[in-house]
Amino acid sequence: MRKKRESLRQAWKLLIEADSFVLACHQRPDGDALGSALALARALRKIGKDVVVVAEDGVPELFRFIPESETVVSSTDRRNFDIGMLVDSEGLKRVGSAADAVMSAKTTACIDHHLPDGEFGEIRIVDSTASSTAELLLDFLHENNVPIDSVMADQLMAGIVNDTGAFRFANATPKTFQAAARLMRLGAKPSVAAREIYENKPIRALRLLGRALESIRTDADGVVAWAVITQQDLQELGATDADTDSIVSVVAQVKGPKVAILFREIKPDSIRISLRSRDGVDVNRIARVFGGGGHAAAAGCHVDLPIDEAQSVVIAEVLKWMES
Amino acid sequence: MRKKRESLRQAWKLLIEADSFVLACHQRPDGDALGSALALARALRKIGKDVVVVAEDGVPELFRFIPESETVVSSTDRRNFDIGMLVDSEGLKRVGSAADAVMSAKTTACIDHHLPDGEFGEIRIVDSTASSTAELLLDFLHENNVPIDSVMADQLMAGIVNDTGAFRFANATPKTFQAAARLMRLGAKPSVAAREIYENKPIRALRLLGRALESIRTDADGVVAWAVITQQDLQELGATDADTDSIVSVVAQVKGPKVAILFREIKPDSIRISLRSRDGVDVNRIARVFGGGGHAAAAGCHVDLPIDEAQSVVIAEVLKWMES
Repeated sequence: MRKKRESLRQAWKLLIEADSFVLACHQRPDGDALGSALALARALRKIGKDVVVVAEDGVPELFRFIPESETVVSSTDRRNFDIGMLVDSEGLKRVGSAADAVMSAKTTACIDHHLPDGEFGEIRIVDSTASSTAELLLDFLHENNVPIDSVMADQLMAGIVNDTGAFRFANATPKTFQAAARLMRLGAKPSVAAREIYENKPIRALRLLGRALESIRTDADGVVAWAVITQQDLQELGATDADTDSIVSVVAQVKGPKVAILFREIKPDSIRISLRSRDGVDVNRIARVFGGGGHAAAAGCHVDLPIDEAQSVVIAEVLKWMES
Repeated sequence: MRKKRESLRQAWKLLIEADSFVLACHQRPDGDALGSALALARALRKIGKDVVVVAEDGVPELFRFIPESETVVSSTDRRNFDIGMLVDSEGLKRVGSAADAVMSAKTTACIDHHLPDGEFGEIRIVDSTASSTAELLLDFLHENNVPIDSVMADQLMAGIVNDTGAFRFANATPKTFQAAARLMRLGAKPSVAAREIYENKPIRALRLLGRALESIRTDADGVVAWAVITQQDLQELGATDADTDSIVSVVAQVKGPKVAILFREIKPDSIRISLRSRDGVDVNRIARVFGGGGHAAAAGCHVDLPIDEAQSVVIAEVLKWMES
């Protein structure tokens, strides 16, 4: 513990010797990458540093509620920053074209709660027990007596809420809850971040979710639950493919089944399949049978079959795996 | 603050002078009523007290994960308890037939985070700034140095998770997050409570949610969103009234409207109405117009009208409040 605190102080000492910084978020940036990069940028700018925050894909609409997110650029031609830092980004390949600016810097650095990927970064602020990079950054700023204003508090809260499913995932620890209490006292509003990230859906998306849920079925033994979204559903409800994104996680709320599947008809005879599991069932193995992949608890694949056949084939495969 | 702490100590002193207790939960008990009553019962039993926890409607399936929920009875013929206590129940009328046992007690008491209803209770443990009765009870137990074991921690966590939407609602304060951190350190698992309460639904409940979401409508200005569940919906899907419980919070996820409403047909010409709001709109005031109540952001009422008329009347009232 003491060693960790010393390393946090040492890292800050090294950072503030520099004048210019590029902070790079990963591709398809989430609330943790953006909130953390913006809070660190603000802390550094307040003490006169020159900071560029870059996220190759820009800021998705969902995360534009994060204060100062409008300052994020999608690319920079500048080179030779004093510090090139990866924020929440595991490794260099996840920041896309921003890697060039990072690698041209005099000193490389990273701040991350992911398992370190190789040995990137001469200055490393890493803690894989933190729920989020934002939680780690709060620790880092606190340890170095860096003042945290209400804007930074909201930026950090966005990161924590993003990575913990608004405190619902098992990665939220007592320390996470304490961090949230501290950020609230500094002015952050977790309920606002939770609503923006998880509970702010176009009406067409909720109607589409409704239609998918009405169609939920299970196999005879109640081992697998699935729902279907056809092109006709999208057209009738004026919905788009993006509106289908979080539906499989609601299908996975069915009590009983260990595997949940969403079949999405992309076009006739072209079906995207999302799989979720609980209790340790490995759906990644099932997705791989069809040339897809992912993680044990969340995976996906694609089959070129009519929607009915796609269901039969994939469900049969799942049941086969479950029996074996 | 000091006065509050003194009153918590005084209340405990009065309680432990007694030997027998009946703790009454409100009708349609939720995780806060049950978790709080069970945690207090366990604390009292540990020091040799005779405690009956009663909830007229029994323990809904959803809350049977709460430790010791199997000890809750739906009625008791016993009378003349030393203490008759309402838990999370606002007033006597909300505990149904359990009121008889409570009122026959030598001393009445209440523990509640709702706005006090009249002056019920010779011993009153009330704090309307607490997110939940469980949060207040944790304070109460802590102030009186009552040991909290992991079972009580899980019972109290169920209450907090229940009443804060697993930390997503604006009623979660820094104190709430600190309470969660403390309960986790005592062994509670918020992720388990969140999953059980919010993400573990019978298939019929998800289908019913689906049907409700497909029916979402808004007024012309997009200020109010609402959905409807009829008796026919319940019958067609084999669903029960309990399956409707969390639907209004999903309706409230529509982006735009500041008020969300769920109309539930209990029987012909008898409609239960749940209201949710965002951005500080006070739906409690609207519910009161119809003889109901609740909190600013979540309230309910009942009207004896056909379902179509109920919608017209309540939506008109909401729009009137919004304009004023």
